[in-house]
Amino acid sequence: MTEKPGEGETHTKLGPGPEFDRIRGIARRLGEHASGLGDDCALLTVGDLTLVLSTDLSVENVHFRSTWLSPQEIGWRAAAAALSDLAAEAATPLGVLASIAVPATASPEEVEQLMEGVGDAAASVGAWVLGGDLSRAETWVIDVTVVGTTDNPIRRSGARPGDQLWVSGTLGGSRAALSLWLQGVEPDPEARLAFAHPEPRIALGRRLGESGAHAMLDLSDGLAGDARHLAAASACAITIDLAALPIHPSVAAVAAKSGMAPQRFGAMGGEDYELLVAMPDTFTEADAARLASECRVTLTRIGAVSEGAGATFLSGGVPVELAGFDHFA
Amino acid sequence: MTEKPGEGETHTKLGPGPEFDRIRGIARRLGEHASGLGDDCALLTVGDLTLVLSTDLSVENVHFRSTWLSPQEIGWRAAAAALSDLAAEAATPLGVLASIAVPATASPEEVEQLMEGVGDAAASVGAWVLGGDLSRAETWVIDVTVVGTTDNPIRRSGARPGDQLWVSGTLGGSRAALSLWLQGVEPDPEARLAFAHPEPRIALGRRLGESGAHAMLDLSDGLAGDARHLAAASACAITIDLAALPIHPSVAAVAAKSGMAPQRFGAMGGEDYELLVAMPDTFTEADAARLASECRVTLTRIGAVSEGAGATFLSGGVPVELAGFDHFA
Repeated sequence: MTEKPGEGETHTKLGPGPEFDRIRGIARRLGEHASGLGDDCALLTVGDLTLVLSTDLSVENVHFRSTWLSPQEIGWRAAAAALSDLAAEAATPLGVLASIAVPATASPEEVEQLMEGVGDAAASVGAWVLGGDLSRAETWVIDVTVVGTTDNPIRRSGARPGDQLWVSGTLGGSRAALSLWLQGVEPDPEARLAFAHPEPRIALGRRLGESGAHAMLDLSDGLAGDARHLAAASACAITIDLAALPIHPSVAAVAAKSGMAPQRFGAMGGEDYELLVAMPDTFTEADAARLASECRVTLTRIGAVSEGAGATFLSGGVPVELAGFDHFA
Repeated sequence: MTEKPGEGETHTKLGPGPEFDRIRGIARRLGEHASGLGDDCALLTVGDLTLVLSTDLSVENVHFRSTWLSPQEIGWRAAAAALSDLAAEAATPLGVLASIAVPATASPEEVEQLMEGVGDAAASVGAWVLGGDLSRAETWVIDVTVVGTTDNPIRRSGARPGDQLWVSGTLGGSRAALSLWLQGVEPDPEARLAFAHPEPRIALGRRLGESGAHAMLDLSDGLAGDARHLAAASACAITIDLAALPIHPSVAAVAAKSGMAPQRFGAMGGEDYELLVAMPDTFTEADAARLASECRVTLTRIGAVSEGAGATFLSGGVPVELAGFDHFA
């Protein structure tokens, strides 16, 4: 009844970084007990159905501070981050499960508000809250698992030379909010929204899949890091023009303070939860404009795929060094 | 393509206790965004398939201490606890996802060992590790989500007057180990095994389902508490004879120290991960012996279901008061 997905026992090829070193170690250790680690989602074929699953952990003082966000926002953000992985797979969400641990000082009202945020994010993409678990811990912890289906999963590994790279929405807004909070400044409403209320790009992901996407992932580590992961998984080279990046309107002021160009800041942001997708070159600007209008989010061409390896970022035609965002760095 | 499970929008009726008060609050708050909360597992009908999902959170210093267990045992125990929920649904496991947060001091080797434990537990019941997430936290946190299928899910709500109650394995071993550790004493190997290496009763759960089980759950809060949940969900009364309980061999010595009868200690244990099942009275001692031998675990008749409400524990024919085990108590 059950079989491993088409890629068999091979895990997705992983890009550089300490978190990925750990995943590599785990995949080695698990050997044949594990299947398809390293992509946005796990695929599971049951009968004639492909299930798509992902899990996403949010920890207080690592992913957020409870002084920055309301419990409802913590819940929305955690669920949206997990649902974003389904978007990157071109999947249709079915349900979410949320495991929550809260300090002894948390009130029942706060726990309910957090779950309300999870429920709102699920409902925004037509999914139900199916269950969860509840425990104590020293800090707030929320782990959201999402399950969906797709007839046509889009992996990280399918980009081909000649493909064009597109990105949804804008980049750097979430990092702008983070920078401001860390400086003790309350972010402007737009930056705050990018951090607290990311929109999982479910509709766009599906439409990109239907439009022939070769490879897709969601930007959680920042474009600089995630582009490397896409290149590694697809065994191709990626070239991105920094000048082409759609930058969140709040970035300019924040980047200026640290003497950084907004483009660099945006490329090195984290937790944008936008889609990075390799489309065949038959996918035109007009196609992009149609999808963007349908799904109410911009879609911007930012680079191309070629033979080779790694991700190169160009500024004025010259390669520049960029670091990604890594929770283990 | 997707529909809510047969029970529609009604959540499982919940028994007493502060943790269940919280779940009640969450279910109220989520309203129509949630489906079927309060049972061991969530059910999700996709096409002609019934998916069974559950998630189980283990937190250092709440569910275990890292001085008691090796990382591998922490991983096994967390995965076995989640898989036990599938057993209680008479489901066949397909895969597990594990989200892990570790302190900055944890070595890559320890993280790999923990995932090896998760992988071993999954492999022991024919499931794969499909994915996970990895983060930092102040203490060890592991959340395991399991997915399976079943043609015939067994809920908590189906017990009927006239049913007989059976329990698998022995009770109180895990609590005996916990008591000893909390007294600063290393438990004997059998008690330690009950705590560190619970066996998810997958094969037995399926065979009980095939044999006509009316209602089933796994014992995580202890028989005293869980019997109340079964009674509440099924809107029946449950009577259990303490003298009939199969008690773990390590319990007697530990219970004696606190001046408690082993039967009471066993009934108030927690995290036994054994199955409590309501079988029609056509299910005989001979049927039980056959299943027990097939699945290599004992199956003991401990009580009966009747009209009414609540769970009553008898000692020498006289009702006695017992408290359950509650992480929020």
